[in-house]
Amino acid sequence: MSRITDLRLHSIAIADPPLRSSYGLHAPYALRTILELESSDGVVGISETYGGEAQVLQLEALRGQIVGADPYRLTGFLSPMVEGTPAGNAKSDRSQTYLLPGENPLDATTRTYAAIEVACLDLIGKTVGQPVCDLIGGRVREEVPFSAYPFYKHAGGGGEGDDEREDEYGEALTAEQLVEQVREMIAQYGFRSIKFKAGVLEPEVEVETVKQLYRALGPTVPLRIDPNSAWTVETSVRVGRELAEELGRGGYLEDPTAGLENMAAVRIRLVAEGIMTPLASNVAVTCFADIPQSLQLDAVQIILCDVHYWGGMRQVQHLARLARTHGLGLSMHSNSHLGVSLMAMAHVAAATPHLTYACDTHYPWQSEQDEVVLGGKVPIVGGCVRIPNKPGLGVELDYDKLARGRERYAKCGYRKRDDEAEMRKRVDPAWKRELPKW
Amino acid sequence: MSRITDLRLHSIAIADPPLRSSYGLHAPYALRTILELESSDGVVGISETYGGEAQVLQLEALRGQIVGADPYRLTGFLSPMVEGTPAGNAKSDRSQTYLLPGENPLDATTRTYAAIEVACLDLIGKTVGQPVCDLIGGRVREEVPFSAYPFYKHAGGGGEGDDEREDEYGEALTAEQLVEQVREMIAQYGFRSIKFKAGVLEPEVEVETVKQLYRALGPTVPLRIDPNSAWTVETSVRVGRELAEELGRGGYLEDPTAGLENMAAVRIRLVAEGIMTPLASNVAVTCFADIPQSLQLDAVQIILCDVHYWGGMRQVQHLARLARTHGLGLSMHSNSHLGVSLMAMAHVAAATPHLTYACDTHYPWQSEQDEVVLGGKVPIVGGCVRIPNKPGLGVELDYDKLARGRERYAKCGYRKRDDEAEMRKRVDPAWKRELPKW
Repeated sequence: MSRITDLRLHSIAIADPPLRSSYGLHAPYALRTILELESSDGVVGISETYGGEAQVLQLEALRGQIVGADPYRLTGFLSPMVEGTPAGNAKSDRSQTYLLPGENPLDATTRTYAAIEVACLDLIGKTVGQPVCDLIGGRVREEVPFSAYPFYKHAGGGGEGDDEREDEYGEALTAEQLVEQVREMIAQYGFRSIKFKAGVLEPEVEVETVKQLYRALGPTVPLRIDPNSAWTVETSVRVGRELAEELGRGGYLEDPTAGLENMAAVRIRLVAEGIMTPLASNVAVTCFADIPQSLQLDAVQIILCDVHYWGGMRQVQHLARLARTHGLGLSMHSNSHLGVSLMAMAHVAAATPHLTYACDTHYPWQSEQDEVVLGGKVPIVGGCVRIPNKPGLGVELDYDKLARGRERYAKCGYRKRDDEAEMRKRVDPAWKRELPKW
Repeated sequence: MSRITDLRLHSIAIADPPLRSSYGLHAPYALRTILELESSDGVVGISETYGGEAQVLQLEALRGQIVGADPYRLTGFLSPMVEGTPAGNAKSDRSQTYLLPGENPLDATTRTYAAIEVACLDLIGKTVGQPVCDLIGGRVREEVPFSAYPFYKHAGGGGEGDDEREDEYGEALTAEQLVEQVREMIAQYGFRSIKFKAGVLEPEVEVETVKQLYRALGPTVPLRIDPNSAWTVETSVRVGRELAEELGRGGYLEDPTAGLENMAAVRIRLVAEGIMTPLASNVAVTCFADIPQSLQLDAVQIILCDVHYWGGMRQVQHLARLARTHGLGLSMHSNSHLGVSLMAMAHVAAATPHLTYACDTHYPWQSEQDEVVLGGKVPIVGGCVRIPNKPGLGVELDYDKLARGRERYAKCGYRKRDDEAEMRKRVDPAWKRELPKW
């Protein structure tokens, strides 16, 4: 029987443009961890997850259980990591209101499990010659749609020193600049829906930005707005009202305000006005334990899954079935990532019937230069990633590029994500994240 | 790539003793369908499902989609069969209150899908040399606990004519006889929990039966009683009260009365009396669409899954995660079956972390003579089925025994299950199923 003979962890840093959100500012580097599992057959399975020191330590702590394990059985053996506490014993705040994705200690175990599960599935797929989506139930779509993910941002690209480089999008701190950014993204990738990161400028400016996007793109391109909890209930309702038309054509209002009770208050007030724009969340609802209360309050109508922090591919499939059972939509969250994560997202999406929205992805913000996947960046065509006719995730590592990612990590000094500190360092020394801000 | 080159369907009849339930009487033969999928590599994957003409026709109707398909992809391609209607559009009565398992037209598609999924997984497992439980997430237990499943019954075993044969248990139409039946089952199989089929005699006799079982077995053997909806709310509450001690030690009260509203009424009245015996169901809740209302009413605290009619192994795993999310227990339903079904039940149970009760099984009621599994009946030791160290489901077909099962089917004349007709034919020409009966 094939055994896992080696676990290799690679901490890498990738250039990241100065993107803004209600959390603050993206640092010049985003951190990722690349995981390799080698089997006694000499096959290597890979995955990608959040970066930085804490994530690597969590994976290292499992080395003794991983090395020597059967890749078909390891996920079952480690399953207590994703079964979590019963609903009734849920921690009172597992939300990410105040925590960046990847920095929430309460989902450390599900994140860590997911990285191992995906690498096991890639290893199994590469061993038996099957794509991962077909190992977990079989594909229901050959092409997985993704959304454009425009951000307000400062000029300049990512990286520092010799490694610094412009991105192709430039500054976007006005409605007009943001529309231009979206036009460029659509021209390059063919996206057919837009997820717009808000919570950065005055709500009036953000409303105007969405209105301009809607005028520019027309009613057939669904628009979503995500201010990451930056608004009061009052502001959320006002924005929902002012953008009823723009968000109402297949779009949604994502985490306008913090907490399930406030989300529910927004929902009930919008519905009372006849505005049916659904509310989506990956901040108020981040784990199974959040769902019963969310349902009870009708706080969230769409859940954003994430193969990384919801505990892997099978947990995402469980979530999708649960969402369908309760009449909830399912979308997919993203964080700054490279092609290995993109393919994991695409494979689980391909094998999840009840995925009702195009997935988020930060992928266009990452540069060819930093991609660790052999052959360079995975193509997004017509807004979609096509499941390749290759085993496993369908991608292999470029070890030279991986080595450069490790060097960048060694040099850059960043060891965790802290968008608030970065905002103070580069934009406003007095900046603090305050919720609700508007 | 390996393709499915042949689909073979075998309608078989197996001797079944004259077991009683609120549905009526088991006929001398239970019907099953054995499915074989052969691949271009010459590997054969098998599964077992409900029998009779309708089930075979449903499978035959998919022949064109099955033959030529990739076994890794067929389940994805057919997934609309198990995604079902969104909760909001649920048919108002998909319950099995008036329908025997396997005879409910509303779960025909999920039953049919499940038979195909299990055969695909067995085929894949046998191709790559892996047990099925390790293909679907990995085992979380090596041994799967089953319950003894005593029935009130008439004397004599199953079969007709030359094929007629006594079973080892004899008549059980009193409390004392039923206790004796359980003692024999425990002696032979080592069961450590008891699921008792009631709804047959006066409730007072059935209460007395449970009390005698409790005295005979002591408080460490969990007892469940299942009258298949035979009782009024009033009777259900009375039984729940009188058996508070006996069912309260890890047991449950299964489908005492028909319909979610009535189940909820029983629950609220028992809790008001401080009786926390949970209610279980595989009659009021038979599909995902039933769950939202059940949760809203707190009608059911334990759901009985079934790999056959809930739509296969992955749907059972989805159901388990949903149950855990909502603080519900999960048990497993059974129908008269042979060793292929037993192994499918054991494999999905082995790979389902949130299975909180021993599974039901009718297996002890079937005879060695009718078993189609090579080597004879699968051993149940210490009340458990051990996952064998073999690929796929871990069992192969005995083609001679299968041929005899087909002959029996051809001769016996039964083409569907109708316990009510059987009851009129053999016990009481005037018998009718009336709910509630008591």
